[in-house]
Amino acid sequence: MSHPGDVSALDRILSEGLVRAEDIVAIIGKTEGNGGVNDFTRGYFTQSLMSLLSRRLGQSPDELLRRIPCVLSGGTEGVLSPHYVVFSRSGVFPPAPGDNAALAIGTAVSPPLAAEHVGRVAHVLSVAEAVKSAMAQARISRPDDVHFVQVKCPCITSARAEAAKAQGKSVITSDANRSMAFARAAGAFGVALALGEIESSAVDDAALLRDFDVFSSRASVSSGVEVDANEVIVLGNSPYWSGNLQIAHRPMADALDIGAVVHMLADLGIEAAPQVATKDLARLQAVFVKCEPDRRGAIRGHRHTMLDDTDINAQRHVRGALGGLVAGVVGDTRIFVSGGAEHQGPDGGGLIAGIAERLTVPDGDR
Amino acid sequence: MSHPGDVSALDRILSEGLVRAEDIVAIIGKTEGNGGVNDFTRGYFTQSLMSLLSRRLGQSPDELLRRIPCVLSGGTEGVLSPHYVVFSRSGVFPPAPGDNAALAIGTAVSPPLAAEHVGRVAHVLSVAEAVKSAMAQARISRPDDVHFVQVKCPCITSARAEAAKAQGKSVITSDANRSMAFARAAGAFGVALALGEIESSAVDDAALLRDFDVFSSRASVSSGVEVDANEVIVLGNSPYWSGNLQIAHRPMADALDIGAVVHMLADLGIEAAPQVATKDLARLQAVFVKCEPDRRGAIRGHRHTMLDDTDINAQRHVRGALGGLVAGVVGDTRIFVSGGAEHQGPDGGGLIAGIAERLTVPDGDR
Amino acid sequence: MSHPGDVSALDRILSEGLVRAEDIVAIIGKTEGNGGVNDFTRGYFTQSLMSLLSRRLGQSPDELLRRIPCVLSGGTEGVLSPHYVVFSRSGVFPPAPGDNAALAIGTAVSPPLAAEHVGRVAHVLSVAEAVKSAMAQARISRPDDVHFVQVKCPCITSARAEAAKAQGKSVITSDANRSMAFARAAGAFGVALALGEIESSAVDDAALLRDFDVFSSRASVSSGVEVDANEVIVLGNSPYWSGNLQIAHRPMADALDIGAVVHMLADLGIEAAPQVATKDLARLQAVFVKCEPDRRGAIRGHRHTMLDDTDINAQRHVRGALGGLVAGVVGDTRIFVSGGAEHQGPDGGGLIAGIAERLTVPDGDR
Amino acid sequence: MSHPGDVSALDRILSEGLVRAEDIVAIIGKTEGNGGVNDFTRGYFTQSLMSLLSRRLGQSPDELLRRIPCVLSGGTEGVLSPHYVVFSRSGVFPPAPGDNAALAIGTAVSPPLAAEHVGRVAHVLSVAEAVKSAMAQARISRPDDVHFVQVKCPCITSARAEAAKAQGKSVITSDANRSMAFARAAGAFGVALALGEIESSAVDDAALLRDFDVFSSRASVSSGVEVDANEVIVLGNSPYWSGNLQIAHRPMADALDIGAVVHMLADLGIEAAPQVATKDLARLQAVFVKCEPDRRGAIRGHRHTMLDDTDINAQRHVRGALGGLVAGVVGDTRIFVSGGAEHQGPDGGGLIAGIAERLTVPDGDR
Repeated sequence: MSHPGDVSALDRILSEGLVRAEDIVAIIGKTEGNGGVNDFTRGYFTQSLMSLLSRRLGQSPDELLRRIPCVLSGGTEGVLSPHYVVFSRSGVFPPAPGDNAALAIGTAVSPPLAAEHVGRVAHVLSVAEAVKSAMAQARISRPDDVHFVQVKCPCITSARAEAAKAQGKSVITSDANRSMAFARAAGAFGVALALGEIESSAVDDAALLRDFDVFSSRASVSSGVEVDANEVIVLGNSPYWSGNLQIAHRPMADALDIGAVVHMLADLGIEAAPQVATKDLARLQAVFVKCEPDRRGAIRGHRHTMLDDTDINAQRHVRGALGGLVAGVVGDTRIFVSGGAEHQGPDGGGLIAGIAERLTVPDGDR
Repeated sequence: MSHPGDVSALDRILSEGLVRAEDIVAIIGKTEGNGGVNDFTRGYFTQSLMSLLSRRLGQSPDELLRRIPCVLSGGTEGVLSPHYVVFSRSGVFPPAPGDNAALAIGTAVSPPLAAEHVGRVAHVLSVAEAVKSAMAQARISRPDDVHFVQVKCPCITSARAEAAKAQGKSVITSDANRSMAFARAAGAFGVALALGEIESSAVDDAALLRDFDVFSSRASVSSGVEVDANEVIVLGNSPYWSGNLQIAHRPMADALDIGAVVHMLADLGIEAAPQVATKDLARLQAVFVKCEPDRRGAIRGHRHTMLDDTDINAQRHVRGALGGLVAGVVGDTRIFVSGGAEHQGPDGGGLIAGIAERLTVPDGDR
Repeated sequence: MSHPGDVSALDRILSEGLVRAEDIVAIIGKTEGNGGVNDFTRGYFTQSLMSLLSRRLGQSPDELLRRIPCVLSGGTEGVLSPHYVVFSRSGVFPPAPGDNAALAIGTAVSPPLAAEHVGRVAHVLSVAEAVKSAMAQARISRPDDVHFVQVKCPCITSARAEAAKAQGKSVITSDANRSMAFARAAGAFGVALALGEIESSAVDDAALLRDFDVFSSRASVSSGVEVDANEVIVLGNSPYWSGNLQIAHRPMADALDIGAVVHMLADLGIEAAPQVATKDLARLQAVFVKCEPDRRGAIRGHRHTMLDDTDINAQRHVRGALGGLVAGVVGDTRIFVSGGAEHQGPDGGGLIAGIAERLTVPDGDR
Repeated sequence: MSHPGDVSALDRILSEGLVRAEDIVAIIGKTEGNGGVNDFTRGYFTQSLMSLLSRRLGQSPDELLRRIPCVLSGGTEGVLSPHYVVFSRSGVFPPAPGDNAALAIGTAVSPPLAAEHVGRVAHVLSVAEAVKSAMAQARISRPDDVHFVQVKCPCITSARAEAAKAQGKSVITSDANRSMAFARAAGAFGVALALGEIESSAVDDAALLRDFDVFSSRASVSSGVEVDANEVIVLGNSPYWSGNLQIAHRPMADALDIGAVVHMLADLGIEAAPQVATKDLARLQAVFVKCEPDRRGAIRGHRHTMLDDTDINAQRHVRGALGGLVAGVVGDTRIFVSGGAEHQGPDGGGLIAGIAERLTVPDGDR
């Protein structure tokens, strides 16, 4: 992308027939805004993308927006490069599972979530349902085969808060930014519940944004005013899918957990000693990182200054640092790094996932 | 440091007798400002430090400032932790060199540099002289034994430019920021010349800030209005020194050069696979990094957004990314990362140096 | 505007028939980006606007972009409110001038400007020609009747610089930001020349960005990579126009020149003592301000900190201050305030213009 | 001030005998930091100032800090100029009040405030007591003669919160930033109570940061980690004081309330039509402004973007705008503008105060 409105690369790929517009099921990308409330690079990209697909598919941009999850994280701090990953799907499922599992994708949108439920148990359950539905669509039956769940959750705007109050309903907070944090927490709990990472007894209003020992190591959740329902993208490996891609993930213990990066790559059969070799890099298709500035103000005992900086938002700081680390190990700057990782990976840490081509595609699998 | 005026840790160490105030010869540190013209955390720290040493030594802060180089880099972006390294020296040189080389330090201050010479060949030669003088003080005879040279150069302020003009002298630029870049370039050329990295025939006004194939892989140069002469700190290994510390360095090819980090550590006998183990980390005393956002706008073929960001200064971006990478490999966030690396390491890259205790101190060496 | 992609207000006005899409001749607006190189709110707004007009007019967005100047200034610092002013024109000119002059608008686009001419005398002359052409289109014969000239100039990108060099041509600078300043200077000189504010003998390469005593008090110039020719909007009063609007302007001596604001309003028959009364505010249709942080570092003898701030761009600082001042006098936050005012108004100052309905529309003028 | 550590102007004035160091009772100033948690320009200035006074008075900096309130507001956005106002007091009170009231100052420090009381009714009462005590010291008996009360309140740090919990006490919030807002609210309520602006029945935990119709039009409150008691500076007019200075104030209805600026000046016998004339400006000694970005997101019906800006803190935005407005009316950029005005002036507005020499000093008053 030469700028946030530039979808010419996808246009070219579509024109060349490498991907068919009708096969596109989801987009995950990074644009070069600030990643905050006033980051309009996401809206600009989405408008440009949906306009392109609208011309190609004859559907209105609004219809497409409702059908194709488009999750964008603003902020390419440091070495990070603006880019987007387009997921496409074609063919029909075989009658029986194959011998090898390949990358599988499923998407789902929950029913609209009322403002009074945002950031509460009802929200958790709604996300969990959507995750299960997306898993079914992806033909992934074992939770362990799910490696990355991207969720976009609604939050509470002033307008929604007042509408709820007018109906005698109470909302968890009328602070929009705070409601986004609660929504992300609920999204993470929902994924953890659906994947069996937590018991349903652990789902409790009081645990959200409080008990950070509860987390999903496969949830990547964002929250925004532009949605009124939970949008879910499930990525995993399924024997019902063919193709030569596979996905892996690892939790990150803290912002220095280079081991998690190396192990995730190893899971994909890629060595990084200390950096991925050029030939292996060609196999790597996407890397997703979720991270968070440690809320306790220190990393391995030494003070960091991210949380007290009035000039640069803490999420921008941590994205830049993690971006530098992961890009250095991978040897490529097209890394998806997103902040706001409450209950997504260990407290003060986060998670990393990657998609790569297999070294050798088994015979019977195409 | 709990804030930029906090020198209580040094105060404690001095009180405990671990270090003697009169042995302190240099300080290199990172404070948590923005690293730009309006970064006053450096002045605040320097005032606090000199006030502490003044009380201990009975010398005025101004005298101390002239005697003890205190090089601070503002900006602890991302995971970086504010900290400072205090260099102290004691004892007398033995009549003959020992069998093993140990960490050696020498400092020098050039005569005041006239404004019309800043950023030009005369500046280069002045720095080269000071480097040689500091090497002699450190008893380092072979240029290859020098591993890190920190230089602070004067720049051209409006006042100095006008004074020069009044005398009929021309300055290279009357833009203060631009003059700092020229001064850093001249400093790097000076170090390269003194260390034999370049021939004196390569020293040419036209090459500064133009021919980026010319560089020193051991120079770390800053420029500021607060000095009117070149201050030099030379760090290397010398057989005239005892003690159990040694220093190593590597050039960094670009902002993703994790290999340089690993190899520098290996030079110190420390393995990072992928991270330095806790027991080895205890031996590591300091890490210094110099880096620069690639001026061509891309890293390994992919666009970065550091240079066009009106919200966050490009140097803050690159320090955050390199800080994340190096801290991840080292497993510690107390890393000195400084930007403005013109001619200091390969173009688009920079350099890394580290100081560590030796695994075993040879018998005859104490 | 609720966000930079929101053109619903114009959509509504067009649907209600208050303005006809085919009558729209120019747009001047403020969006809420940072106003720098990475301000994508301008592109987002332009894409949304042209998409709206394209649907209404059946022309392609690209054709519309070439026909309708759309000048956006990013940055609504402080109290400023994002907004845009749509200029529309209808009817035919009468055979003879009327008794009263009314607001008149003319637009022109110069031939494409070669990179080697940007920021030089040829650029000045090209702008001057375009201004004269737009004046003719607006039926304004006397330069004194011109009150505001908005110019968008091309600048020198790396690509254009290299293309020029390949042809053996030299460019004034290959630094894109610096070329924008030269382009703005050339634009201001061009307006000044066309309006007789300077003699052609004063047009000299050496005067641009050097002799700040040369300026136009009616030029508002921006420069950007998105144009390759000079786009000009001339606003003035002409007896060939009817309607109940008129325009006035005043130069601003410095950033504290509240007198210029009050006098410009008085020229429009509006009193501000100290603030415009509600009934008069209803008559005021638009206010345009051009300003610049004083390059000498002080305002009326006291240091300002805008130029040395690494956290907030100097133009953002000055827009916020002038926005606060003008909005306070006017009593409305929808003020167009733009920085980068080299040679546009006195050094360290700028200019202000306003458009208002006349108190009483003379009988024979409708 | 040429930088935040520069107290040379005061040093000169003391050396010249214009002011005696032992007469200094308070300092109010603006430094050029960001005004946030990581604004170290305040600490740097305070250290420099107390070091200067310590050398002159032979008292330790710590003693002086406890005796002389030094209130600094970081942030000289836009045209604002870094500066500080030094209040000195000499002579003895006459046995009876004079015919004319002159500027009077009183200071007080409350007993240390326990963490569990911060931001609650006990905090309000503690501030009210200190205000009354400072009024008594200033010999101001009528609340109406008080025109500006500067308060610095303690807030709740993590350490204080935990200490309180260990004793079984609950704190109002353990979020430091939030506790500062509560502390400022309590400070404003305390001033309002002491000055009779509100009844003691209106003092209720539930009203703080909720009922913004309750406010003091003379309170300017800041909160910081560096104090554990409430520091109060009362400024007013008293017939027990001589000298040729007087003070006035006005509430500001919103960020565009230029009328309040003009009326406050008129109260001091200074006309601004539209700007203070040079001869009158010489009489004006200090201007203090307190302001707040309107929390409802709009000013006079039009959206502002201050609250949603991830790049520039909202307080920086509003200080820049108000600074531009007030400096434009006054004709001088040395204006104290401070944000965080909860319950200090009308909601979305704030207050302004000024100190000026009287036009003619009555005979019997010296």
